[in-house]
Amino acid sequence: MAPTRLTNNSITHIGLIVRDIEATRRRYIDMLGAPEAAIGEVDAPEIAKTVYQGKPVVARAKLCHLRLGPIQVELIQPLGGPSTWQEFLDTKGEGVHHIAFDTPDAKADMKALEEAGATQVQYGEWVGGNYTYADTTPQLGVMLELIKID
Amino acid sequence: MAPTRLTNNSITHIGLIVRDIEATRRRYIDMLGAPEAAIGEVDAPEIAKTVYQGKPVVARAKLCHLRLGPIQVELIQPLGGPSTWQEFLDTKGEGVHHIAFDTPDAKADMKALEEAGATQVQYGEWVGGNYTYADTTPQLGVMLELIKID
Repeated sequence: MAPTRLTNNSITHIGLIVRDIEATRRRYIDMLGAPEAAIGEVDAPEIAKTVYQGKPVVARAKLCHLRLGPIQVELIQPLGGPSTWQEFLDTKGEGVHHIAFDTPDAKADMKALEEAGATQVQYGEWVGGNYTYADTTPQLGVMLELIKID
Repeated sequence: MAPTRLTNNSITHIGLIVRDIEATRRRYIDMLGAPEAAIGEVDAPEIAKTVYQGKPVVARAKLCHLRLGPIQVELIQPLGGPSTWQEFLDTKGEGVHHIAFDTPDAKADMKALEEAGATQVQYGEWVGGNYTYADTTPQLGVMLELIKID
């Protein structure tokens, strides 16, 4: 395997799949002292343009970003529809789904990861950027998210 | 539930259970460009003084700390014996086992977490410090590690 390096390998957040985002968010604030943070939703389908396993899908989820020092914990509650989030919840239950990196060139990074055996599992956009999930579970024990801010 | 706050809620590392630490370490370096890092082992039983589920045990594991920006990824390969590491591998397979915080007072933090419903699952020492795993999976979707450096 030829070495393939991410453009940036500084972790910005870890993504955690949960069943009840309101209750979990409250416990991160009360038990750990995380600063208050609002719960949002994945943008509307015509903006999100989600592609999962190579097919356009309507993948919905609630999201909340909680800061714990140098990184954030991103809570994700799947709201149904085919997605890597729903699949993780259905097969593994609650837990850490991915570690995330900002990147200036998500396509180049995804290509490099594919050359090392990873597969692109999901892509989506929001007003302000896009994300790509690389399934690196067989290689790294956890999935990666490549985040490109516009 | 009364608010209970950790002494410090700044994440220092995430702990990942793996089957083959040599191979996984190599891929973090080659695929992600993590800096080289040595593989170590849990200290000898008379130093480690491991307690798992309230009972003294001999819990062995290989460990490797890889830096990815502001935090580290701690790879943990269980080597058998009863431990939270082996239990995780046996029941969930590879994946993120915990998020870790340094603390000046692990006992006070553990007590505060217990008051919020967490249970102490494992404690151990090494030459230079000690760790406590708090099972907060039902509350936070992931386990916590409290690290006290001597």
